[in-house]
Formats: sequence, structure tokens, C-alpha cells
Amino acid sequence: MYKETHLRSIVKTISWRVLATLTTISLIYIFIGDLTVAVSVGGIEVFLKMLVYFLHERAWDKIKFGKKEIQPAVIWFTGLAKSGKKDIAKLVEEKLKNKGYKVAFLDGRSIRNLIPEIGYTREDVNLHIKRVGFLAKKLEEHGVFVVASFLSPYKESREFVKNLCQNYFEIFVNTPLEICKQRDETGVYKLAEQNKIQNFPGVHFDYEKSDYEVLEVSLSKNSTQEIAENVINYVNKSINLA
Amino acid sequence: MYKETHLRSIVKTISWRVLATLTTISLIYIFIGDLTVAVSVGGIEVFLKMLVYFLHERAWDKIKFGKKEIQPAVIWFTGLAKSGKKDIAKLVEEKLKNKGYKVAFLDGRSIRNLIPEIGYTREDVNLHIKRVGFLAKKLEEHGVFVVASFLSPYKESREFVKNLCQNYFEIFVNTPLEICKQRDETGVYKLAEQNKIQNFPGVHFDYEKSDYEVLEVSLSKNSTQEIAENVINYVNKSINLA
Repeated sequence: MYKETHLRSIVKTISWRVLATLTTISLIYIFIGDLTVAVSVGGIEVFLKMLVYFLHERAWDKIKFGKKEIQPAVIWFTGLAKSGKKDIAKLVEEKLKNKGYKVAFLDGRSIRNLIPEIGYTREDVNLHIKRVGFLAKKLEEHGVFVVASFLSPYKESREFVKNLCQNYFEIFVNTPLEICKQRDETGVYKLAEQNKIQNFPGVHFDYEKSDYEVLEVSLSKNSTQEIAENVINYVNKSINLA
Repeated sequence: MYKETHLRSIVKTISWRVLATLTTISLIYIFIGDLTVAVSVGGIEVFLKMLVYFLHERAWDKIKFGKKEIQPAVIWFTGLAKSGKKDIAKLVEEKLKNKGYKVAFLDGRSIRNLIPEIGYTREDVNLHIKRVGFLAKKLEEHGVFVVASFLSPYKESREFVKNLCQNYFEIFVNTPLEICKQRDETGVYKLAEQNKIQNFPGVHFDYEKSDYEVLEVSLSKNSTQEIAENVINYVNKSINLA
């Protein structure tokens, strides 16, 4: 939430006064043709009106009328490991921030680092995603855009999040598995194939597609930058990102 | 986040113009003593300046300068079951909302209803409180006040939350156990004494006090309304709740 500072009102007062007094002087000069009177009235007006304008500004800072709250959204990126969802999500976050919105970025790593006691079974992952969904909902409810990047391979928990949030947009980053493997410098796919990591999506089970409409994108078709643009346009169709 | 609507700018334009044109007419009349000229200049000024003022308002809506972001806080109520913490917290929430702040209310019931798979062992409760703390931190980070009411009997998890948040205020509602039991219409204390509920604070183990400074209050000393006032004053000493 913002409040207008006194300094803002002062600077705005001066900017208005320059504009307005030039208008007054011109007007009086055109009317009575006497530049001396025009400038004299203008001169007194400058100080008197600055005071009145400043008080008018301060009074309006107390008035809520006509201040429209922005309706935010939850933009949920899902897809296999190394599909590129996080890079796209980060770009979308940046674009929203540049528009002046409040944006919270949530991803698996940042949350697991903080609260590490999360298992990797289907149940654990579903419960974890639901909790993240609750966090997203609460942030959205209070005017914050949420950009979330989670593997979230099970449709059940994604649908739970969708139902929880007001404006939920799901972006399925469906980069082909082969490209995901090529992009994998850390070797998580190798570890999964050697069963050193259990229950790994794309290796031990397939990603579950949602039953509802999602935006499907892929690094095999577009660049990260292009996809981020598409995501913004997709969201913009439903809620106006001025 | 708020944006100013066009309607706000229009109404503000008119309110300013009435003030300003009356000033101009008086000024010209005092200067040249001719009411006809004064009113004529005033008449043209009205329309011309309204247009200029409206455009000036719209331009300033794009300018961030001098808009101060409010620094919110996390106000954490802790104490035994039926100590009265939730009623106090609800009043504090209301008082903050009346000041125009964004406030999220979090309590055990609302979260357990939504995500019910939470155990009642020491470990489960600590982990749950830590997760709630993460939620509180994220809300605070994005300008939302958090009023949380959780039994949270273990000092470990409360301290975790304190360290996570920027402005954390802990209110220990230390209503004597006997009064808590008197206030217990639902009979949870009876169930706990009969061991039908396990691991219940106040019955099976003692509430753990924090090692750092907290505000300690009690329904045996003050009314809910008085305590809520004290809490606002306590927070106000550290961060200015204008």
C-alpha cells in the first residue's frame, strides 16, 4: 500500500502552478491587453494558489474515492525438470514488475531451502503443492501477483490450486523430454535413470496433463523471450495488464 | 496496489476548479476593480484550466515520486486454548483495517480446514507453524499486515517465525489456565484430561515461554477491547501506524 508523501504533494504543487499561472497570465493579457496587470495578478496568484493547491492535495490523500485496486493473478508454470519453466517465469516476473505491479516469485528451490522437510512421494508432493497454492491464494487476495514455477506433475494438486485462486493461469512448459535431458547439466535425469532419485517425472512416470484449458508452450518451438511475451498476452486477454 | 481511476481525476478536477476560480475572480476584482472582467476571465479559466488540470492529474498518476510504501508487520498471538487470543486478534485486525491497511488474518482453524493433513505431535506442530511463518513473511514482504492467532506452544517454531519476518511482534495471551478452562464451552480441556486428545498444551505439557521480549497480556487483567488497544500501541512504538 502507498501513501502520498508531503514532498510529492509539494513537487506536484509547483509543477501545477507553473502550468496554471502561465495560463492565467495569457488569459488576462488576451482579455485586457495589459501585460503589467496580467503579470501582477499572476505573481500574487502563484503564492496564494500554491498554498490552496497543497492543502487540496493533502485533503485528497485522505479520500479513497476513485482509487481502483488492481486485480492480480496467479501464473503457474508447470512442466518437466529442465523444461525451461523457471527462466520463462523469471522473465514474466520481470515484465510484471516493470509494469509497476507487486509480484511474488515462488519456486520449488526457494521453498524447499527454507522448509526442507518435504518428501518426494506422490502424496508428499501433492500436499506440498496444495500448501504453495494456499500461499499463492493469500498473496493474490491481498493484491500481489504470483509467478510460480513448480514441476507439479500431478493434475490433482494443480486443479486444487486453480480452484483456490481467483485468477489462475496455467502455463504447461511442454518441452520434449529429449531436449530437457540435453539441457540437464546437473545430471538429475541420469541419477533418476540409475534409480538414485526415486519417483522422478519423465523417467518413472508420465506428467499428468490438466483437463481444463492451459497455455501450452515449448522451448522446441519458441525462445524463452518469445514465450514470456506470449504468456503476458495470454494473461492480458482475461485481465487487463495496463 | 491502487491506480487512480479517470473518474477520481475528474471529480478532483472539479473540486479544485471551484476553489481556484473563486480565488482568481477575487484576485482580479481586487486588482482592477472591474467585476465584469473578473467574472469573464474566471469563466474562460474554468474550462481551460479544467482540461489542463485533468491532463496534469493523469500525468502524475504515472509518476512514482513521493509515493511512500507502508512497512507492514506480523502480529503473532500465542497462548493456551480459550485464552482469548483469537478475539483480541480479530479486534486488532479490525483496527488495522480501519486505518486503511491491508490485513491478512491467519488462524489455526482456517488453515486446518483448508489443508487438513496436519498432525498434532511436537514435530508436526512445529513444522506447521514454520510453514505459516513462511506465508506470513511472504505477505509482509508484499505490503500486507499479518494478524496470526496460533496456540504455537513451542518456542522453537515461534522464534523461527520471528527470524523470518521483518517486523515481528509477539503477543503472549497468558490468561490463567483456570480461566481458560472456565471459558471452554466446547469441552476440549475435558477431552484432553481424559486423554481423548493427546499432547494438549496446559494439560500434557507446559506452554514454552519465549526468551526474547514479548507483550504479555491476560484476560484476568484487562478486557479484550483494552488489550487490543494495548497491542496497537505496542506495535505503534516500533512502526508508525499513521
